[in-house]
Amino acid sequence: MPHHAKARPFTLDELRAYLAEVFPQVWARGDYAIEAVGPMSATVRLVYHPDHLRPGGTISGPAMFTLSDLALYVAILHEIGRVKLAVTTSLTINFLRKPEPRDLIARVRLMKLGKRLAVGEVALTSEGSDEMVAHATGTYSIPAKGDAEG
Amino acid sequence: MPHHAKARPFTLDELRAYLAEVFPQVWARGDYAIEAVGPMSATVRLVYHPDHLRPGGTISGPAMFTLSDLALYVAILHEIGRVKLAVTTSLTINFLRKPEPRDLIARVRLMKLGKRLAVGEVALTSEGSDEMVAHATGTYSIPAKGDAEG
Amino acid sequence: MPHHAKARPFTLDELRAYLAEVFPQVWARGDYAIEAVGPMSATVRLVYHPDHLRPGGTISGPAMFTLSDLALYVAILHEIGRVKLAVTTSLTINFLRKPEPRDLIARVRLMKLGKRLAVGEVALTSEGSDEMVAHATGTYSIPAKGDAEG
Amino acid sequence: MPHHAKARPFTLDELRAYLAEVFPQVWARGDYAIEAVGPMSATVRLVYHPDHLRPGGTISGPAMFTLSDLALYVAILHEIGRVKLAVTTSLTINFLRKPEPRDLIARVRLMKLGKRLAVGEVALTSEGSDEMVAHATGTYSIPAKGDAEG
Repeated sequence: MPHHAKARPFTLDELRAYLAEVFPQVWARGDYAIEAVGPMSATVRLVYHPDHLRPGGTISGPAMFTLSDLALYVAILHEIGRVKLAVTTSLTINFLRKPEPRDLIARVRLMKLGKRLAVGEVALTSEGSDEMVAHATGTYSIPAKGDAEG
Repeated sequence: MPHHAKARPFTLDELRAYLAEVFPQVWARGDYAIEAVGPMSATVRLVYHPDHLRPGGTISGPAMFTLSDLALYVAILHEIGRVKLAVTTSLTINFLRKPEPRDLIARVRLMKLGKRLAVGEVALTSEGSDEMVAHATGTYSIPAKGDAEG
Repeated sequence: MPHHAKARPFTLDELRAYLAEVFPQVWARGDYAIEAVGPMSATVRLVYHPDHLRPGGTISGPAMFTLSDLALYVAILHEIGRVKLAVTTSLTINFLRKPEPRDLIARVRLMKLGKRLAVGEVALTSEGSDEMVAHATGTYSIPAKGDAEG
Repeated sequence: MPHHAKARPFTLDELRAYLAEVFPQVWARGDYAIEAVGPMSATVRLVYHPDHLRPGGTISGPAMFTLSDLALYVAILHEIGRVKLAVTTSLTINFLRKPEPRDLIARVRLMKLGKRLAVGEVALTSEGSDEMVAHATGTYSIPAKGDAEG
Protein backbone atom coordinates (compact mmCIF):
# COMPACT_ATOMS: atom_id res chain seq x y z
CA MET A 1 0.00 0.00 0.00
CA PRO A 2 1.56 3.31 -0.97
CA HIS A 3 2.20 5.97 1.68
CA HIS A 4 -0.49 8.31 0.45
CA ALA A 5 -3.24 5.73 0.74
CA LYS A 6 -2.65 4.27 4.17
CA ALA A 7 -4.76 5.13 7.19
CA ARG A 8 -2.90 7.30 9.68
CA PRO A 9 -3.15 6.91 13.44
CA PHE A 10 -4.22 10.54 14.12
CA THR A 11 -6.41 13.20 12.64
CA LEU A 12 -4.99 16.70 12.98
CA ASP A 13 -7.19 17.42 16.01
CA GLU A 14 -6.29 14.15 17.70
CA LEU A 15 -2.61 14.87 17.11
CA ARG A 16 -2.95 18.31 18.70
CA ALA A 17 -4.80 16.87 21.71
CA TYR A 18 -2.25 14.10 22.15
CA LEU A 19 0.73 16.49 22.05
CA ALA A 20 -0.91 18.89 24.52
CA GLU A 21 -1.45 15.95 26.86
CA VAL A 22 2.02 14.40 26.77
CA PHE A 23 4.17 17.53 26.26
CA PRO A 24 2.18 20.15 28.20
CA GLN A 25 5.29 22.26 28.90
CA VAL A 26 5.96 22.65 25.16
CA TRP A 27 2.42 23.22 23.92
CA ALA A 28 0.79 25.07 26.83
CA ARG A 29 2.19 28.54 26.19
CA GLY A 30 0.98 28.66 22.62
CA ASP A 31 4.41 29.20 21.06
CA TYR A 32 3.86 26.40 18.54
CA ALA A 33 0.92 25.61 16.30
CA ILE A 34 0.48 22.64 13.98
CA GLU A 35 -0.81 24.14 10.74
CA ALA A 36 -1.19 20.98 8.68
CA VAL A 37 -0.19 17.35 8.48
CA GLY A 38 -0.19 15.11 5.44
CA PRO A 39 1.46 12.01 4.00
CA MET A 40 5.10 12.14 5.13
CA SER A 41 4.74 15.88 5.80
CA ALA A 42 3.83 18.49 8.40
CA THR A 43 3.75 22.28 8.75
CA VAL A 44 4.39 23.80 12.17
CA ARG A 45 4.42 27.49 13.13
CA LEU A 46 6.53 29.22 15.74
CA VAL A 47 4.41 32.12 16.97
CA TYR A 48 6.56 35.21 17.37
CA HIS A 49 7.56 36.14 20.91
CA PRO A 50 10.41 38.43 22.01
CA ASP A 51 11.90 35.51 23.99
CA HIS A 52 12.94 33.98 20.67
CA LEU A 53 15.16 36.89 19.68
CA ARG A 54 18.92 37.12 19.80
CA PRO A 55 20.86 40.39 20.06
CA GLY A 56 20.25 42.32 16.88
CA GLY A 57 16.55 41.53 16.93
CA THR A 58 16.47 38.41 14.73
CA ILE A 59 15.09 34.97 15.69
CA SER A 60 17.79 32.99 17.50
CA GLY A 61 19.49 29.81 16.28
CA PRO A 62 18.28 27.74 19.26
CA ALA A 63 14.68 28.84 18.54
CA MET A 64 15.12 27.64 14.93
CA PHE A 65 16.65 24.34 16.07
CA THR A 66 13.81 23.75 18.54
CA LEU A 67 11.17 24.43 15.89
CA SER A 68 12.90 22.14 13.36
CA ASP A 69 13.20 19.25 15.80
CA LEU A 70 9.60 19.67 16.95
CA ALA A 71 8.22 19.82 13.40
CA LEU A 72 10.11 16.68 12.38
CA TYR A 73 8.81 14.95 15.49
CA VAL A 74 5.22 15.95 14.66
CA ALA A 75 5.51 14.55 11.12
CA ILE A 76 6.89 11.24 12.42
CA LEU A 77 4.32 10.96 15.21
CA HIS A 78 1.57 11.55 12.64
CA GLU A 79 2.84 8.52 10.71
CA ILE A 80 3.67 6.05 13.47
CA GLY A 81 1.15 6.89 16.20
CA ARG A 82 1.49 6.74 19.93
CA VAL A 83 2.71 3.19 20.28
CA LYS A 84 6.34 3.97 19.63
CA LEU A 85 8.46 6.87 20.84
CA ALA A 86 10.78 8.46 18.30
CA VAL A 87 14.05 9.86 19.64
CA THR A 88 16.26 12.38 17.81
CA THR A 89 19.61 10.79 17.03
CA SER A 90 21.16 13.58 14.96
CA LEU A 91 20.27 16.92 13.45
CA THR A 92 22.16 19.15 11.04
CA ILE A 93 21.01 22.72 10.61
CA ASN A 94 22.22 25.34 8.12
CA PHE A 95 21.46 28.94 8.93
CA LEU A 96 20.94 30.82 5.67
CA ARG A 97 19.58 34.27 6.53
CA LYS A 98 18.72 36.15 9.70
CA PRO A 99 14.96 35.83 10.24
CA GLU A 100 13.01 38.96 11.00
CA PRO A 101 10.99 39.19 14.22
CA ARG A 102 7.92 37.45 12.80
CA ASP A 103 6.35 34.00 12.94
CA LEU A 104 8.45 31.20 11.46
CA ILE A 105 6.95 28.41 9.37
CA ALA A 106 8.57 24.95 9.31
CA ARG A 107 7.69 22.69 6.40
CA VAL A 108 8.75 19.07 6.91
CA ARG A 109 9.16 16.36 4.32
CA LEU A 110 10.00 12.86 5.56
CA MET A 111 12.44 11.17 3.20
CA LYS A 112 12.53 7.78 4.87
CA LEU A 113 10.29 6.03 7.36
CA GLY A 114 11.76 2.65 8.17
CA LYS A 115 10.95 0.31 10.99
CA ARG A 116 13.75 1.68 13.11
CA LEU A 117 14.93 4.91 11.50
CA ALA A 118 13.18 7.99 10.12
CA VAL A 119 14.90 10.78 8.19
CA GLY A 120 13.37 14.11 7.25
CA GLU A 121 14.17 17.60 6.12
CA VAL A 122 12.73 20.95 7.20
CA ALA A 123 12.62 24.27 5.39
CA LEU A 124 12.12 27.34 7.61
CA THR A 125 10.67 30.53 6.18
CA SER A 126 9.41 33.74 7.76
CA GLU A 127 5.67 34.34 7.64
CA GLY A 128 4.83 36.01 4.35
CA SER A 129 8.10 35.23 2.60
CA ASP A 130 9.24 32.38 0.34
CA GLU A 131 12.91 32.78 1.12
CA MET A 132 14.35 30.00 3.24
CA VAL A 133 16.02 31.24 6.43
CA ALA A 134 17.27 27.85 7.62
CA HIS A 135 17.29 24.22 6.50
CA ALA A 136 17.65 21.15 8.69
CA THR A 137 17.87 17.39 8.25
CA GLY A 138 17.19 15.12 11.18
CA THR A 139 17.38 11.40 11.90
CA TYR A 140 15.17 9.72 14.46
CA SER A 141 15.39 6.30 16.06
CA ILE A 142 12.09 4.45 16.43
CA PRO A 143 12.50 1.89 19.19
CA ALA A 144 10.22 -1.10 19.06
CA LYS A 145 7.66 -1.16 21.87
CA GLY A 146 9.41 -2.17 25.05
CA ASP A 147 12.80 -1.94 23.35
CA ALA A 148 15.78 -0.38 25.09
CA GLU A 149 17.51 2.49 23.36
CA GLY A 150 19.89 2.16 20.44
CA MET B 1 17.62 41.93 -10.15
CA PRO B 2 16.08 38.63 -9.05
CA HIS B 3 18.04 35.39 -9.43
CA HIS B 4 15.91 34.05 -12.24
CA ALA B 5 16.43 37.08 -14.45
CA LYS B 6 20.15 37.61 -14.23
CA ALA B 7 22.56 36.69 -17.00
CA ARG B 8 24.67 33.66 -16.11
CA PRO B 9 28.35 33.33 -16.93
CA PHE B 10 28.00 30.00 -18.81
CA THR B 11 25.68 28.30 -21.22
CA LEU B 12 25.36 24.55 -20.61
CA ASP B 13 27.83 23.78 -23.42
CA GLU B 14 30.34 26.34 -22.19
CA LEU B 15 30.07 24.90 -18.69
CA ARG B 16 30.74 21.39 -20.02
CA ALA B 17 33.74 22.59 -22.01
CA TYR B 18 35.15 24.54 -19.08
CA LEU B 19 34.87 21.57 -16.70
CA ALA B 20 36.48 19.18 -19.21
CA GLU B 21 39.34 21.63 -19.53
CA VAL B 22 40.06 22.29 -15.85
CA PHE B 23 39.10 18.91 -14.35
CA PRO B 24 40.08 16.50 -17.14
CA GLN B 25 40.65 13.62 -14.70
CA VAL B 26 37.04 13.84 -13.46
CA TRP B 27 35.26 14.40 -16.77
CA ALA B 28 37.40 12.43 -19.22
CA ARG B 29 36.15 8.93 -18.47
CA GLY B 30 32.52 9.83 -19.04
CA ASP B 31 31.34 8.80 -15.56
CA TYR B 32 29.53 12.10 -15.08
CA ALA B 33 27.17 14.02 -17.34
CA ILE B 34 25.59 17.42 -16.75
CA GLU B 35 21.96 16.95 -17.71
CA ALA B 36 20.69 20.46 -17.07
CA VAL B 37 21.49 23.71 -15.33
CA GLY B 38 19.09 26.45 -14.33
CA PRO B 39 18.66 29.29 -11.87
CA MET B 40 20.17 28.07 -8.58
CA SER B 41 19.87 24.47 -9.80
CA ALA B 42 21.63 21.68 -11.68
CA THR B 43 21.05 18.04 -12.59
CA VAL B 44 24.07 15.74 -12.90
CA ARG B 45 24.13 12.04 -13.81
CA LEU B 46 26.50 9.36 -12.58
CA VAL B 47 26.71 6.88 -15.43
CA TYR B 48 26.64 3.33 -14.08
CA HIS B 49 29.95 1.50 -13.94
CA PRO B 50 30.83 -1.60 -11.86
CA ASP B 51 33.62 0.43 -10.19
CA HIS B 52 30.92 2.31 -8.27
CA LEU B 53 29.55 -0.79 -6.56
CA ARG B 54 30.09 -1.93 -3.00
CA PRO B 55 29.82 -5.55 -1.84
CA GLY B 56 26.21 -6.60 -2.25
CA GLY B 57 25.97 -4.96 -5.67
CA THR B 58 24.61 -1.52 -4.71
CA ILE B 59 26.17 1.87 -5.50
CA SER B 60 28.72 2.74 -2.81
CA GLY B 61 28.53 5.60 -0.32
CA PRO B 62 31.74 7.24 -1.60
CA ALA B 63 30.32 7.21 -5.15
CA MET B 64 27.20 8.98 -3.86
CA PHE B 65 29.27 11.51 -1.90
CA THR B 66 31.42 12.24 -4.95
CA LEU B 67 28.38 12.77 -7.16
CA SER B 68 26.71 15.05 -4.58
CA ASP B 69 29.79 17.22 -4.13
CA LEU B 70 30.32 17.45 -7.88
CA ALA B 71 26.70 18.36 -8.61
CA LEU B 72 26.71 21.10 -5.97
CA TYR B 73 29.95 22.42 -7.43
CA VAL B 74 28.45 22.51 -10.93
CA ALA B 75 25.40 24.47 -9.74
CA ILE B 76 27.62 27.03 -7.98
CA LEU B 77 30.04 27.34 -10.89
CA HIS B 78 27.08 27.95 -13.19
CA GLU B 79 26.10 30.94 -11.02
CA ILE B 80 29.45 32.51 -10.21
CA GLY B 81 31.56 31.75 -13.28
CA ARG B 82 35.24 31.07 -13.59
CA VAL B 83 36.56 34.08 -11.75
CA LYS B 84 36.19 32.60 -8.29
CA LEU B 85 36.96 29.13 -7.07
CA ALA B 86 34.43 27.56 -4.71
CA VAL B 87 35.82 25.17 -2.09
CA THR B 88 33.74 22.62 -0.16
CA THR B 89 33.79 23.48 3.54
CA SER B 90 31.33 20.90 4.83
CA LEU B 91 28.99 18.24 3.55
CA THR B 92 26.37 16.16 5.35
CA ILE B 93 24.95 13.13 3.60
CA ASN B 94 22.11 10.86 4.68
CA PHE B 95 21.92 7.45 3.05
CA LEU B 96 18.27 6.45 2.76
CA ARG B 97 18.09 3.33 0.60
CA LYS B 98 20.58 1.10 -1.18
CA PRO B 99 20.70 2.19 -4.82
CA GLU B 100 20.43 -0.47 -7.47
CA PRO B 101 23.21 -0.86 -10.05
CA ARG B 102 21.89 1.81 -12.40
CA ASP B 103 22.64 5.45 -13.24
CA LEU B 104 22.16 7.89 -10.37
CA ILE B 105 20.61 11.32 -10.88
CA ALA B 106 21.59 14.24 -8.60
CA ARG B 107 19.21 17.19 -8.48
CA VAL B 108 20.70 20.27 -6.80
CA ARG B 109 18.91 23.27 -5.39
CA LEU B 110 21.04 26.13 -4.10
CA MET B 111 19.48 27.63 -0.96
CA LYS B 112 21.92 30.49 -0.50
CA LEU B 113 24.43 32.18 -2.73
CA GLY B 114 26.20 34.89 -0.77
CA LYS B 115 29.37 36.73 -1.60
CA ARG B 116 31.44 34.33 0.46
CA LEU B 117 29.27 31.31 1.21
CA ALA B 118 26.99 29.09 -0.86
CA VAL B 119 24.69 26.41 0.58
CA GLY B 120 22.79 23.81 -1.40
CA GLU B 121 20.97 20.53 -1.13
CA VAL B 122 21.04 17.48 -3.39
CA ALA B 123 18.49 14.71 -3.86
CA LEU B 124 19.83 11.47 -5.37
CA THR B 125 17.52 9.07 -7.16
CA SER B 126 18.10 6.00 -9.32
CA GLU B 127 17.36 6.33 -13.01
CA GLY B 128 13.69 5.63 -13.57
CA SER B 129 12.62 5.96 -9.93
CA ASP B 130 11.27 8.85 -7.87
CA GLU B 131 12.41 7.43 -4.55
CA MET B 132 15.28 9.30 -2.99
CA VAL B 133 18.27 7.07 -2.19
CA ALA B 134 20.39 9.75 -0.52
CA HIS B 135 20.17 13.42 0.45
CA ALA B 136 23.05 15.81 1.03
CA THR B 137 23.56 19.41 2.08
CA GLY B 138 26.83 21.14 1.36
CA THR B 139 28.43 24.47 2.18
CA TYR B 140 31.02 26.09 -0.06
CA SER B 141 33.38 28.95 0.56
CA ILE B 142 33.75 31.43 -2.29
CA PRO B 143 37.07 33.23 -1.86
CA ALA B 144 37.31 36.63 -3.45
CA LYS B 145 39.69 36.77 -6.41
CA GLY B 146 43.21 36.65 -5.08
CA ASP B 147 41.98 35.99 -1.55
CA ALA B 148 43.67 33.45 0.68
CA GLU B 149 41.57 30.63 2.07
CA GLY B 150 39.39 30.77 5.16
CA MET C 1 53.51 32.94 16.55
CA PRO C 2 51.80 29.69 17.54
CA HIS C 3 48.26 29.77 18.87
CA HIS C 4 49.24 28.93 22.44
CA ALA C 5 51.63 31.85 22.73
CA LYS C 6 49.58 34.70 21.37
CA ALA C 7 47.97 37.33 23.58
CA ARG C 8 44.20 36.94 23.75
CA PRO C 9 41.75 39.79 23.77
CA PHE C 10 40.00 38.78 27.01
CA THR C 11 40.82 37.38 30.41
CA LEU C 12 38.19 34.98 31.75
CA ASP C 13 36.67 37.71 33.94
CA GLU C 14 36.60 40.23 31.09
CA LEU C 15 34.93 37.64 28.87
CA ARG C 16 32.25 36.99 31.51
CA ALA C 17 31.62 40.70 31.94
CA TYR C 18 31.43 41.30 28.21
CA LEU C 19 28.93 38.48 27.65
CA ALA C 20 26.73 39.62 30.55
CA GLU C 21 26.71 43.09 29.02
CA VAL C 22 25.88 42.20 25.41
CA PHE C 23 23.72 39.09 25.96
CA PRO C 24 21.97 39.93 29.25
CA GLN C 25 18.97 37.74 28.41
CA VAL C 26 21.19 34.64 28.10
CA TRP C 27 23.52 35.21 31.04
CA ALA C 28 21.26 36.95 33.57
CA ARG C 29 19.38 33.93 34.92
CA GLY C 30 22.53 32.04 35.77
CA ASP C 31 21.78 29.01 33.57
CA TYR C 32 25.22 29.11 32.01
CA ALA C 33 28.65 29.46 33.56
CA ILE C 34 32.00 29.72 31.79
CA GLU C 35 34.24 27.32 33.66
CA ALA C 36 37.47 27.86 31.74
CA VAL C 37 38.91 29.24 28.53
CA GLY C 38 42.22 28.39 26.93
CA PRO C 39 43.99 28.33 23.58
CA MET C 40 41.37 27.26 21.02
CA SER C 41 39.22 25.83 23.84
CA ALA C 42 36.51 26.60 26.37
CA THR C 43 34.45 24.79 29.00
CA VAL C 44 30.89 25.97 29.66
CA ARG C 45 28.40 24.58 32.19
CA LEU C 46 24.63 24.38 31.88
CA VAL C 47 23.34 24.64 35.45
CA TYR C 48 20.52 22.18 36.00
CA HIS C 49 17.00 23.60 35.98
CA PRO C 50 13.71 21.68 35.49
CA ASP C 51 12.98 23.92 32.45
CA HIS C 52 15.68 21.99 30.55
CA LEU C 53 13.92 18.63 30.90
CA ARG C 54 11.93 16.77 28.30
CA PRO C 55 9.23 14.22 29.09
CA GLY C 56 10.91 11.28 30.77
CA GLY C 57 13.04 13.55 32.95
CA THR C 58 16.19 13.81 30.82
CA ILE C 59 17.81 17.02 29.52
CA SER C 60 16.15 18.02 26.23
CA GLY C 61 17.77 18.13 22.80
CA PRO C 62 17.17 21.88 22.36
CA ALA C 63 18.89 22.53 25.72
CA MET C 64 21.90 20.54 24.48
CA PHE C 65 21.93 22.38 21.15
CA THR C 66 21.76 25.76 22.89
CA LEU C 67 24.63 24.87 25.23
CA SER C 68 26.77 23.56 22.32
CA ASP C 69 26.24 26.67 20.21
CA LEU C 70 26.92 28.97 23.16
CA ALA C 71 30.10 27.14 24.18
CA LEU C 72 31.47 27.27 20.63
CA TYR C 73 30.65 30.96 20.49
CA VAL C 74 32.49 31.59 23.78
CA ALA C 75 35.62 29.80 22.52
CA ILE C 76 35.62 31.83 19.30
CA LEU C 77 34.94 35.13 21.07
CA HIS C 78 37.84 34.39 23.41
CA GLU C 79 40.13 34.15 20.37
CA ILE C 80 38.90 36.99 18.18
CA GLY C 81 37.68 39.58 20.67
CA ARG C 82 34.85 42.04 20.40
CA VAL C 83 35.75 43.64 17.11
CA LYS C 84 34.12 41.00 14.95
CA LEU C 85 30.83 39.21 15.39
CA ALA C 86 30.81 35.47 14.72
CA VAL C 87 27.59 34.04 13.30
CA THR C 88 26.65 30.34 13.35
CA THR C 89 26.40 29.06 9.78
CA SER C 90 25.83 25.35 10.49
CA LEU C 91 25.72 22.93 13.39
CA THR C 92 25.52 19.14 13.44
CA ILE C 93 24.65 17.44 16.70
CA ASN C 94 24.63 13.73 17.51
CA PHE C 95 22.65 12.66 20.56
CA LEU C 96 24.38 9.66 22.12
CA ARG C 97 22.73 9.01 25.50
CA LYS C 98 19.90 10.55 27.50
CA PRO C 99 21.45 12.90 30.04
CA GLU C 100 20.30 12.64 33.63
CA PRO C 101 18.80 15.69 35.36
CA ARG C 102 22.14 17.18 36.39
CA ASP C 103 24.47 19.94 35.19
CA LEU C 104 25.89 19.45 31.71
CA ILE C 105 29.51 20.28 30.86
CA ALA C 106 30.44 21.37 27.30
CA ARG C 107 34.10 21.08 26.33
CA VAL C 108 34.97 22.89 23.10
CA ARG C 109 37.98 22.42 20.90
CA LEU C 110 38.36 24.77 17.93
CA MET C 111 39.76 22.92 14.92
CA LYS C 112 40.12 25.87 12.60
CA LEU C 113 40.23 29.61 13.13
CA GLY C 114 40.56 31.31 9.77
CA LYS C 115 40.05 34.91 8.86
CA ARG C 116 36.48 34.24 7.80
CA LEU C 117 35.52 30.80 9.08
CA ALA C 118 35.88 29.02 12.43
CA VAL C 119 35.11 25.34 12.99
CA GLY C 120 34.93 23.60 16.35
CA GLU C 121 33.68 20.51 18.11
CA VAL C 122 31.95 20.12 21.47
CA ALA C 123 31.71 17.10 23.77
CA LEU C 124 28.85 17.18 26.28
CA THR C 125 29.03 15.15 29.48
CA SER C 126 26.92 15.08 32.62
CA GLU C 127 28.51 16.47 35.79
CA GLY C 128 30.51 13.72 37.47
CA SER C 129 30.61 11.38 34.45
CA ASP C 130 33.12 10.87 31.63
CA GLU C 131 30.58 9.39 29.22
CA MET C 132 29.71 11.67 26.32
CA VAL C 133 25.95 12.33 26.04
CA ALA C 134 26.14 14.41 22.84
CA HIS C 135 28.71 15.63 20.33
CA ALA C 136 28.42 18.64 18.04
CA THR C 137 30.46 20.30 15.33
CA GLY C 138 29.74 23.87 14.36
CA THR C 139 30.92 26.31 11.71
CA TYR C 140 30.91 30.06 12.25
CA SER C 141 31.30 32.90 9.82
CA ILE C 142 33.51 35.77 10.99
CA PRO C 143 32.54 38.86 9.01
CA ALA C 144 35.18 41.52 8.67
CA LYS C 145 34.37 44.69 10.59
CA GLY C 146 31.68 46.54 8.72
CA ASP C 147 31.22 43.62 6.32
CA ALA C 148 27.77 42.50 5.25
CA GLU C 149 26.81 38.91 5.90
CA GLY C 150 27.73 35.92 3.74
CA MET D 1 32.41 -5.49 31.84
CA PRO D 2 33.98 -2.21 30.67
CA HIS D 3 34.80 -1.70 27.01
CA HIS D 4 38.54 -1.90 27.49
CA ALA D 5 38.41 -5.32 29.14
CA LYS D 6 36.14 -7.24 26.80
CA ALA D 7 37.42 -9.78 24.30
CA ARG D 8 37.20 -8.53 20.72
CA PRO D 9 36.22 -10.67 17.77
CA PHE D 10 39.36 -9.96 15.72
CA THR D 11 43.06 -9.54 16.18
CA LEU D 12 44.57 -6.92 13.88
CA ASP D 13 45.83 -9.60 11.48
CA GLU D 14 42.48 -11.37 11.41
CA LEU D 15 40.75 -8.08 10.71
CA ARG D 16 43.10 -7.37 7.80
CA ALA D 17 42.55 -10.85 6.37
CA TYR D 18 38.79 -10.58 6.75
CA LEU D 19 38.61 -7.21 5.00
CA ALA D 20 40.83 -8.36 2.14
CA GLU D 21 38.51 -11.34 1.70
CA VAL D 22 35.16 -9.54 1.72
CA PHE D 23 36.15 -6.20 0.15
CA PRO D 24 38.90 -7.25 -2.29
CA GLN D 25 38.22 -4.29 -4.60
CA VAL D 26 38.96 -1.82 -1.77
CA TRP D 27 41.94 -3.50 -0.18
CA ALA D 28 43.67 -5.13 -3.15
CA ARG D 29 45.43 -2.09 -4.59
CA GLY D 30 47.13 -1.21 -1.33
CA ASP D 31 45.65 2.30 -1.06
CA TYR D 32 44.55 1.70 2.53
CA ALA D 33 46.42 0.25 5.49
CA ILE D 34 45.08 -0.44 8.98
CA GLU D 35 47.75 0.91 11.28
CA ALA D 36 46.20 0.03 14.62
CA VAL D 37 42.95 -0.96 16.30
CA GLY D 38 42.05 -0.62 19.96
CA PRO D 39 39.07 -0.29 22.27
CA MET D 40 36.53 1.86 20.42
CA SER D 41 39.31 3.16 18.15
CA ALA D 42 41.20 2.55 14.92
CA THR D 43 43.90 4.22 12.84
CA VAL D 44 43.80 3.82 9.06
CA ARG D 45 46.22 5.22 6.48
CA LEU D 46 45.49 6.38 2.95
CA VAL D 47 48.70 5.70 1.01
CA TYR D 48 49.43 8.60 -1.29
CA HIS D 49 48.65 8.11 -4.97
CA PRO D 50 48.20 10.80 -7.67
CA ASP D 51 44.66 9.46 -8.28
CA HIS D 52 43.63 11.05 -4.95
CA LEU D 53 44.54 14.57 -6.02
CA ARG D 54 42.24 17.35 -7.08
CA PRO D 55 43.27 20.27 -9.31
CA GLY D 56 45.79 22.31 -7.38
CA GLY D 57 47.62 19.22 -6.19
CA THR D 58 45.90 18.63 -2.83
CA ILE D 59 44.09 15.47 -1.70
CA SER D 60 40.48 15.57 -2.92
CA GLY D 61 37.35 15.79 -0.76
CA PRO D 62 35.97 12.46 -2.02
CA ALA D 63 39.26 10.75 -1.10
CA MET D 64 38.93 12.17 2.43
CA PHE D 65 35.29 11.10 2.67
CA THR D 66 36.15 7.58 1.52
CA LEU D 67 38.98 7.26 4.04
CA SER D 68 36.77 8.58 6.88
CA ASP D 69 33.93 6.19 6.12
CA LEU D 70 36.31 3.24 5.78
CA ALA D 71 38.14 4.02 9.04
CA LEU D 72 34.86 4.30 10.97
CA TYR D 73 33.75 1.00 9.45
CA VAL D 74 37.00 -0.69 10.50
CA ALA D 75 36.61 0.52 14.11
CA ILE D 76 33.03 -0.77 14.27
CA LEU D 77 33.85 -4.10 12.64
CA HIS D 78 36.66 -4.57 15.16
CA GLU D 79 34.09 -4.25 17.96
CA ILE D 80 31.14 -6.20 16.61
CA GLY D 81 32.75 -8.89 14.45
CA ARG D 82 31.54 -10.50 11.30
CA VAL D 83 28.11 -11.57 12.45
CA LYS D 84 26.45 -8.22 11.79
CA LEU D 85 26.89 -5.84 8.89
CA ALA D 86 27.13 -2.16 9.73
CA VAL D 87 25.70 0.27 7.16
CA THR D 88 26.51 4.00 7.00
CA THR D 89 23.35 6.00 7.66
CA SER D 90 24.84 9.50 7.73
CA LEU D 91 28.19 11.24 7.61
CA THR D 92 29.12 14.88 8.17
CA ILE D 93 32.55 16.04 7.10
CA ASN D 94 34.21 19.41 7.68
CA PHE D 95 37.14 20.27 5.44
CA LEU D 96 39.59 22.39 7.43
CA ARG D 97 42.77 22.71 5.37
CA LYS D 98 43.97 21.53 1.99
CA PRO D 99 46.05 18.40 2.55
CA GLU D 100 49.41 18.19 0.85
CA PRO D 101 50.16 15.31 -1.52
CA ARG D 102 51.22 12.89 1.19
CA ASP D 103 49.71 9.96 3.10
CA LEU D 104 46.67 10.79 5.19
CA ILE D 105 46.11 9.30 8.65
CA ALA D 106 42.56 8.77 9.98
CA ARG D 107 42.18 8.39 13.73
CA VAL D 108 38.73 7.11 14.78
CA ARG D 109 37.11 7.28 18.17
CA LEU D 110 33.75 5.55 18.58
CA MET D 111 31.48 7.61 20.84
CA LYS D 112 28.58 5.18 21.01
CA LEU D 113 28.21 1.50 20.27
CA GLY D 114 24.62 0.50 20.86
CA LYS D 115 22.81 -2.62 19.79
CA ARG D 116 21.49 -0.91 16.69
CA LEU D 117 23.43 2.31 16.22
CA ALA D 118 27.11 3.24 16.34
CA VAL D 119 28.45 6.81 16.23
CA GLY D 120 32.06 7.82 15.81
CA GLU D 121 34.33 10.69 14.90
CA VAL D 122 37.44 10.79 12.73
CA ALA D 123 40.34 13.24 12.71
CA LEU D 124 42.37 13.34 9.48
CA THR D 125 45.96 14.57 9.49
CA SER D 126 48.72 14.51 6.91
CA GLU D 127 51.63 12.16 7.58
CA GLY D 128 54.16 13.95 9.77
CA SER D 129 51.83 16.77 10.88
CA ASP D 130 49.56 17.23 13.90
CA GLU D 131 47.28 19.71 12.20
CA MET D 132 43.84 18.36 11.40
CA VAL D 133 42.91 18.68 7.71
CA ALA D 134 39.37 17.32 8.04
CA HIS D 135 37.00 16.06 10.71
CA ALA D 136 34.04 13.74 10.24
CA THR D 137 31.29 12.23 12.35
CA GLY D 138 29.40 9.20 11.10
CA THR D 139 26.43 7.13 12.22
CA TYR D 140 26.06 3.47 11.36
CA SER D 141 23.09 1.17 11.59
CA ILE D 142 23.81 -2.31 12.93
CA PRO D 143 21.05 -4.61 11.73
CA ALA D 144 20.43 -7.69 13.83
CA LYS D 145 21.40 -10.91 12.08
CA GLY D 146 18.82 -11.65 9.44
CA ASP D 147 17.17 -8.28 9.98
CA ALA D 148 15.98 -6.18 7.05
CA GLU D 149 17.32 -2.67 6.70
CA GLY D 150 16.12 0.36 8.62
